[in-house]
Amino acid sequence: MNLKEFANLIGLSQTTVSRAMSGYPEVKAETRARVLEAAERLGYRPNISAQRLATGRAGAIGIVFQGGGRFGPHSSEFMGGLSTSLQKDGIDILVSTVETLEDEEAAYRGFAASKRVDAVILHTPGCADPRIALLQSLDLPFIVHGRSEAAKPFAYLDIDNFGAIETAIQHLADHGHRRISLINGDTSSTYAHDRDNGYRATLQAHGIAMDPALIGQGEFTDETGFRLMQSFLALPAPPTAVIAGSMMSALGAMRAIRVAGLRLGQDVSLVAHDDVFPYLSPENLVPSVTTTQSPIRAAGERIGEMTLRLLQGELPETLQEVWEVDFVRRGSTGPAPN
Amino acid sequence: MNLKEFANLIGLSQTTVSRAMSGYPEVKAETRARVLEAAERLGYRPNISAQRLATGRAGAIGIVFQGGGRFGPHSSEFMGGLSTSLQKDGIDILVSTVETLEDEEAAYRGFAASKRVDAVILHTPGCADPRIALLQSLDLPFIVHGRSEAAKPFAYLDIDNFGAIETAIQHLADHGHRRISLINGDTSSTYAHDRDNGYRATLQAHGIAMDPALIGQGEFTDETGFRLMQSFLALPAPPTAVIAGSMMSALGAMRAIRVAGLRLGQDVSLVAHDDVFPYLSPENLVPSVTTTQSPIRAAGERIGEMTLRLLQGELPETLQEVWEVDFVRRGSTGPAPN
Repeated sequence: MNLKEFANLIGLSQTTVSRAMSGYPEVKAETRARVLEAAERLGYRPNISAQRLATGRAGAIGIVFQGGGRFGPHSSEFMGGLSTSLQKDGIDILVSTVETLEDEEAAYRGFAASKRVDAVILHTPGCADPRIALLQSLDLPFIVHGRSEAAKPFAYLDIDNFGAIETAIQHLADHGHRRISLINGDTSSTYAHDRDNGYRATLQAHGIAMDPALIGQGEFTDETGFRLMQSFLALPAPPTAVIAGSMMSALGAMRAIRVAGLRLGQDVSLVAHDDVFPYLSPENLVPSVTTTQSPIRAAGERIGEMTLRLLQGELPETLQEVWEVDFVRRGSTGPAPN
Repeated sequence: MNLKEFANLIGLSQTTVSRAMSGYPEVKAETRARVLEAAERLGYRPNISAQRLATGRAGAIGIVFQGGGRFGPHSSEFMGGLSTSLQKDGIDILVSTVETLEDEEAAYRGFAASKRVDAVILHTPGCADPRIALLQSLDLPFIVHGRSEAAKPFAYLDIDNFGAIETAIQHLADHGHRRISLINGDTSSTYAHDRDNGYRATLQAHGIAMDPALIGQGEFTDETGFRLMQSFLALPAPPTAVIAGSMMSALGAMRAIRVAGLRLGQDVSLVAHDDVFPYLSPENLVPSVTTTQSPIRAAGERIGEMTLRLLQGELPETLQEVWEVDFVRRGSTGPAPN
C-alpha cells in the first residue's frame, strides 16, 4: 500500500498523513493518533522519499568532524546513540569531515545553502564558540553536545564535568591524597575547561596548593596517558593519585604505573572518567578502576530525540540539559601511601 | 576569488574548472594540471556547493547500518579511514540506520531516486548477497567491504579471512594443540563463513577431528566472548587453545580463562584477530596477545580512494583487492599442556 492508497482509505490528504507520521506540530494530536492507529491496523509503512517530497525536509541532520583521525571510540558510541533515536523517524546523518575551523564553517554555510540537512549537531564546543553565532545567523537548527557562552539561547546537552572532578578529588582527598595529577583534554574545549576549573576549585576547597607540574593535557589516547603519567612519576615529588579524562588515557596511565614498578590502588590511586564503552569496562581491568561515569551513547540518543523536538518547533531554550555524573568506587583507589 | 573570477582569469569555463578540480575523467590531464597549478598560484579554493551545481554530483556517499547498536568500534575505525580519503575531495558520508534488510533495500532505492549520494559502501555482505544485484539494478555505484558471489563483477576490498585462521591454527598445531576453539562472528556473513571454512580445512589438513562443541558464534563483544569461553571450558574435554574473532571477544575470553583460575599462554593459548584499535593494543594486555592483524582504518581509507576512482569512471572489475593478514606472535600462545 502506498501513501496515496493509505491516505484515500482513511480519508485524509497525503500531506496530512506524511506530516502526522513525522510528528510535525502542524498536525493536531488527535489526527496524528488516528493516522498512527490506522497505519498499524492496515499495515501501512511510509515511503521515506515520498514523505520528504510532501514535507520539504531533507531527512538528514549534519555533523562535522575536523579530521578523520578524530573519528574514534567516542564518536562511534555517540553516533550509535544518535542514530538509534533518529532511525525511528527515518532521519539519516550526514557526516562531513574537514580540515580546519574555516572549512567547518564553510560546511555549515553549504548545509544552509543546499538544504541537505534539516539540523546540525555541534560537538566539543569552545568556551565562547563562534560556530554557535554562525549557525544562528544561518537559521540552521542545531543542538550542541557540550556547553558554551552565546548571546542568544541555544539547545544543548552536557554532562556536569565540574561536578565529576569535584567528586573524584573529594574521594581522593578523603583518602589522604594531596598530590593529585590531572590528565585532561584540550582546555580550549569547554568540557576540559570545566574539568580544569573543577580541579582547581576543589583542591583549593581542601586547602591543597595547586602544582602546575601535575597537570597535563592532550588527546584521549593510551599514548598520551602513558607519556603524561611517565612525566608525572619522574617529578621530584611524584603524585600519589591521578585523574584520567577517559578510559583510553587511563589505560596508558596504568601502563606507566606498572612499568615504573608501582602498584595501582596502593602506591598510586587512579580515577578515570568513563564514557562507557561496552568493550572496555572498568570492572574488568585488574585492579578494577574507580570511575566517574556517564554513557556517551545515551547522550547521543537523547540528542537525537531533542533534535526531533527542535524540528517539531520546540524552542531551543526549552531544550537544555545538564546530566549529573555517577561515581563508582572500585579497586584502583585506596589510602595515600605514607 | 570565486569560481567565475578564477575561471575568467585562466580563460576556461566554470564547468571545466570544476571538473578539473574534482578530477573527473572528462578533463584532459594537461588541462587539469594547468588548473591545479593556477589555483595554487592564485590562491583559489573551490566552493564545494558551486562545484556540485556545476558537476551534478551529490557530493556524498551512503552507508547503511542495520540498527544503531551495530555502530561500534569497528564502524568508527572504518568511518575514520573512509572520511580521511573522502575529505580531500570534500565528499561527505550519509549514514542511514535502519531496522531490517527490507528497510536497507528501501534506503538504497531512496538513494537512487533522490540522488542524495553518488555511491554506496556495502559492508558485511553475505555469501550470495541480494543487495549486490539490487545496487547493480539501481545503477548506483558501490564498493563492497568484504566479498560475495554475484552474476556481474563488482568492486570490493576484503582481507584474507581464510588465510588468517589457517595461520593461527598452523601456529597452534605446531605447538601441540589439538583441541582448538573458535569464537566466530555470524556465519551468514562471508567473513565469518570464510573463517569457518579456514578453521575446518586447516584442522583437517593437520589430521585433527572437528568437534562442533568447540565452535561458537555471536556478536564481537566482551560479553559474547566471555559466555562462549565459559561454555567451552565447561566441556568434559575443554580446549587448550582458542581463536577469538576480534579483540573485543578476546577480552571476554581472557576474563573467562582468568575466572576459571587458568593461566593464559600456559593452560590455555589464545590467538585474536586484531582490527587495530589504537586504544586496545594486544601489546599492552597482560600477557600480550598473539594476533592475526589487519587495520580496518586502512581498509576504510583505501575504500574511500577506490570510491573516488569508481566515480571517475574506473570499472568495478579493476577495483578488487584482497589483503593479506599479518601474524604477530606474543605471550598468549605457548605449548599445549600435557
